Amino acid sequence: MGRPKVAILSSDLIATAAMDLVDTTGGFTIPELARSLKVSPSSLYNHVSGREQIIELLREKAMSEVRLPELTGPWIDVVGDIVRSYYRSYARYPRLIPLMTAYPVGSHQAVAMYDALAVTLTGAGFDARDTLRIITLIDSFVLGSALDAAAPPAPWGDAPHAGPELAAALATVATSADRAEDAFEFGLAVLLRGLAAR
Amino acid sequence: MGRPKVAILSSDLIATAAMDLVDTTGGFTIPELARSLKVSPSSLYNHVSGREQIIELLREKAMSEVRLPELTGPWIDVVGDIVRSYYRSYARYPRLIPLMTAYPVGSHQAVAMYDALAVTLTGAGFDARDTLRIITLIDSFVLGSALDAAAPPAPWGDAPHAGPELAAALATVATSADRAEDAFEFGLAVLLRGLAAR
Repeated sequence: MGRPKVAILSSDLIATAAMDLVDTTGGFTIPELARSLKVSPSSLYNHVSGREQIIELLREKAMSEVRLPELTGPWIDVVGDIVRSYYRSYARYPRLIPLMTAYPVGSHQAVAMYDALAVTLTGAGFDARDTLRIITLIDSFVLGSALDAAAPPAPWGDAPHAGPELAAALATVATSADRAEDAFEFGLAVLLRGLAAR
Repeated sequence: MGRPKVAILSSDLIATAAMDLVDTTGGFTIPELARSLKVSPSSLYNHVSGREQIIELLREKAMSEVRLPELTGPWIDVVGDIVRSYYRSYARYPRLIPLMTAYPVGSHQAVAMYDALAVTLTGAGFDARDTLRIITLIDSFVLGSALDAAAPPAPWGDAPHAGPELAAALATVATSADRAEDAFEFGLAVLLRGLAAR
């Protein structure tokens, strides 16, 4: 009370406000962010260098929940564990995903995860080029699956005009306790089988 | 000039304005959309029933560019062709993707593509439950890859603190004419191999 408002600003507070805006509107601008924090845009720049740094703070927030396993044991199990943890973390922030892919990665936490994948895949005998391709495949699969996890329980609605094969497939949704989680585990198994069968 | 503005409104015009808003801000609200069209929100409701129908118009716009192949020949080739066309279409509208997954599918074009996949996968011997899982995997892979295609040319930036394995993998970006397209084709091959090796 009575303290100048700029004193309470911090990069943490800025990140939280930006995350709220992304959650509700799908994005943020510096003026919107300043308005939601009740400060001037120029006070924001006392704490962050700009939009790109704020996006990096958001990536760090999401990535800080990824738990990296010990990098020992069969590579398939290690990669599987990393992918599961990465998926669980981003499934909580689906509207952040397009922002994450639109800006280059800078945060330590993110680089640590990509490092763990690169060490494991290189150890498994994949060359540098395939290692990058596999990391990209994992990114696409995880972020796409995280969006799917945020989809409505029946993403295909009442499937108007579905043919019999699609209707039969959609009817199985009801028998699955967690449709998205089940599909994620199935997809991960397909992906790892495809990688092992190189 | 002089005509009442509501006369020029159409669901097509509304979809175009909504797509512009999504492209620039990541989302849209009915008031924003009304403002950008210089009409009142209530005039919008003369043409569309609400937000959900507008999102379906956007899905239709993106899906109308998906070309379905003849459903003959090896299932792996048919699925591969559908996935490629689906990917190319959504790579043009990356910011639309989180909205697409957040709302149930209703448009004819979308159902036609899912129908083609369901017919092909069922014909290949997958049961109804696996058919739905594979469709979900394809959705996640395509939408994640479409986001990746909209990423900066070097999505990992200057990769501060990367270990030697990750640094070596990232160095191969420079040798790839189209990093995202190359990674997509690699990922598609892994996925199809994993499905064939069931």
